[in-house]
Amino acid sequence: MNATTPANTTASQATISESNRSRILQHLYHHGVSSRAQIAKALELTPAAITKITARLIEAGVIKETGDIEGSKNRRSIGLKLDTSHFRVIGVKFARSLVQIGVFDLAGNRLSLDNLPTVSNDTVWDTIATIHTKVNDLLANDKRIMAVGMAVPGPYLRGIGRIAVVSSMQEWRKVNFLREFADAFRVPVFLEQDARAGALAEYLFDPDITADNLAYYLVGEGVGLGAIDNGHLINGALGAATEIGHVSIDVNGRPCDCGNVGCLERYCSAGAIHELVNATDGLVPGSAGMSHAEACRALFALCEEGDEEANHLLRQVARFVGYGCVTIFNAFNPSHIVLGDIVSEAGAPLLNEVRRVVDERVISELNDSTTITLSGLSTDAAVAGAAAVAITQFLEHPSVFFDVT
Amino acid sequence: MNATTPANTTASQATISESNRSRILQHLYHHGVSSRAQIAKALELTPAAITKITARLIEAGVIKETGDIEGSKNRRSIGLKLDTSHFRVIGVKFARSLVQIGVFDLAGNRLSLDNLPTVSNDTVWDTIATIHTKVNDLLANDKRIMAVGMAVPGPYLRGIGRIAVVSSMQEWRKVNFLREFADAFRVPVFLEQDARAGALAEYLFDPDITADNLAYYLVGEGVGLGAIDNGHLINGALGAATEIGHVSIDVNGRPCDCGNVGCLERYCSAGAIHELVNATDGLVPGSAGMSHAEACRALFALCEEGDEEANHLLRQVARFVGYGCVTIFNAFNPSHIVLGDIVSEAGAPLLNEVRRVVDERVISELNDSTTITLSGLSTDAAVAGAAAVAITQFLEHPSVFFDVT
Repeated sequence: MNATTPANTTASQATISESNRSRILQHLYHHGVSSRAQIAKALELTPAAITKITARLIEAGVIKETGDIEGSKNRRSIGLKLDTSHFRVIGVKFARSLVQIGVFDLAGNRLSLDNLPTVSNDTVWDTIATIHTKVNDLLANDKRIMAVGMAVPGPYLRGIGRIAVVSSMQEWRKVNFLREFADAFRVPVFLEQDARAGALAEYLFDPDITADNLAYYLVGEGVGLGAIDNGHLINGALGAATEIGHVSIDVNGRPCDCGNVGCLERYCSAGAIHELVNATDGLVPGSAGMSHAEACRALFALCEEGDEEANHLLRQVARFVGYGCVTIFNAFNPSHIVLGDIVSEAGAPLLNEVRRVVDERVISELNDSTTITLSGLSTDAAVAGAAAVAITQFLEHPSVFFDVT
Repeated sequence: MNATTPANTTASQATISESNRSRILQHLYHHGVSSRAQIAKALELTPAAITKITARLIEAGVIKETGDIEGSKNRRSIGLKLDTSHFRVIGVKFARSLVQIGVFDLAGNRLSLDNLPTVSNDTVWDTIATIHTKVNDLLANDKRIMAVGMAVPGPYLRGIGRIAVVSSMQEWRKVNFLREFADAFRVPVFLEQDARAGALAEYLFDPDITADNLAYYLVGEGVGLGAIDNGHLINGALGAATEIGHVSIDVNGRPCDCGNVGCLERYCSAGAIHELVNATDGLVPGSAGMSHAEACRALFALCEEGDEEANHLLRQVARFVGYGCVTIFNAFNPSHIVLGDIVSEAGAPLLNEVRRVVDERVISELNDSTTITLSGLSTDAAVAGAAAVAITQFLEHPSVFFDVT
């Protein structure tokens, strides 16, 4: 038998070790302080492997030993801890007219948030320059920041670094995010489609979410979806899967900039709602001069006050959000659908109408086994999704961040 | 540190070994005769691991040593081989009115095929009984058969064992496939939704298909989809994901038995085509008395003869097949879409119209990077999908079939 080259042998061991390191970090992240024995039991790893890997993680400063904790049979054992407050990431969320930059700890606690000036088609490049400056300033002032995550509207072409379709503000299409940011800072940068970033945020930061089949349904300036199937984020060949906003709900319906007809986004995005509001007889005074988000929030405020016309309009929109939900059931069969971003701020009246549509149109076995909730993360905190992208990379590929080998 | 229980330690080692065994078998399956060094290099496994695992696989009779093969630097080394003709599986495909039972070798070569008498709503239970008898007969006569794979129409509720929706022939809904078949034979039985089975067949048996992002688009008595994303079959929480036939293409369209409105299946399944043919002024004489498949094939024959009305009707249907394709692009972004089952027999005229719709409606970057082809497996061979379900299990979980530990 020929021997393999040492490089291959090493690669093999490195791959397995990195996978085990990642599993240990994820266990500590999700379960808090744990003993080596508890980790070994949960992950079905040998005590020897745990001892070796945790020693290197402690040496590299990634995890720490805490005082004794109660083990099984009342034996005391040393606890291990991933100190989520010790490391930080920057999240940058791009949402056409709004760019937000936040600093987060690993648990998803937001330490600062910076809303950049409203972006117009003319100021896209100024905004890019501002992001460079601001991120560099943040990095210079806080050595604990170890990565930048960015969430960009889909369909985002991962390999190319460009957004394929932007319904308004065409200048965004010209931005190559990879070229602009991939090697721009002292820490690694990770880019993800925004709804997929949102799914990661729900998965990491919401303690009530335990599903391995999770869909984050972003209804905001765009309409998007991030779907986790059995623990794997569905990506597609180019990273352009789960683009629910461009799935047609009416093949004879409204044309969309993407080339398709009847795209869901044309019926229930913040922009579509803004159009509906503008078309009323002054339901929201001055709505024409508002941003999409402002117009939506003004509508939702009227709904809360009991305004009948406003509530009628909201129900109309909610039915379309519901049709999107029905498609999510049949295309992805998640066990939990989280509705987030601007439009989800409409709250209970929206959710009730969505559930009504789902009750009418979804197979009962699927409906019965699926939870639909509003996101527990506030819309301003949607930038948390961008942070979650970076944190996920840290948990999955620790050796990129620390010398743990 | 507390020691883990021996059971956990064992489980850990067993999991890793099974995974490596599986990877070695899959390598031999896809690449043919290989030396231990070639396998070690391709899989980044240590020579020691390869030696140990292949020794056990040889001992258990799963793989064999062949004569010397040419290694690197002209050194000779011993070849290893998975003899795909030595092991056999039974595939059973359920398609409402047609049930087929085939015997296959591991390479997907069909050794026998049995079309059961056309099933009506009244003969569903007789058919179940016949399957029991026929499979037992096949197993009694061929000791090399080591598993049964079954492909059933979706939405198939994997945990419960039932089909959730059947648009015609309601008796099928009462069949619990798990209860009927899971423990019925001397070999293990594996069940899968039919389009997902088709995706596995394309992935395993078609040498031209190398994509890790593959969609098999089944357009037959039902309309279904099996999607492989980065090598993982998308399942959903209950196994009811990728039910493209019940994704609405028109939320104000035709009602469907599933409760949804405008389901794709209502526009381009073999049954929908049959209805269209029946509604013509005798385009296909005697069509009302035909099966759906017969009516479709009669229509396609007329198309080939150049009949204008027939071609017009086909183009109309093909546009709907195309709308489904557009949804597949935006929901799953595969790099290869394979169109299969009865309707795909319409051939080039169908495919051309589907491509026309896709050219009109899909983002160019996605369109440019995605291949759409007709299945190379003939419709009768669609039962190969059922066989592929069993073969996939063998390749992924060899210890279920052989004592290799």
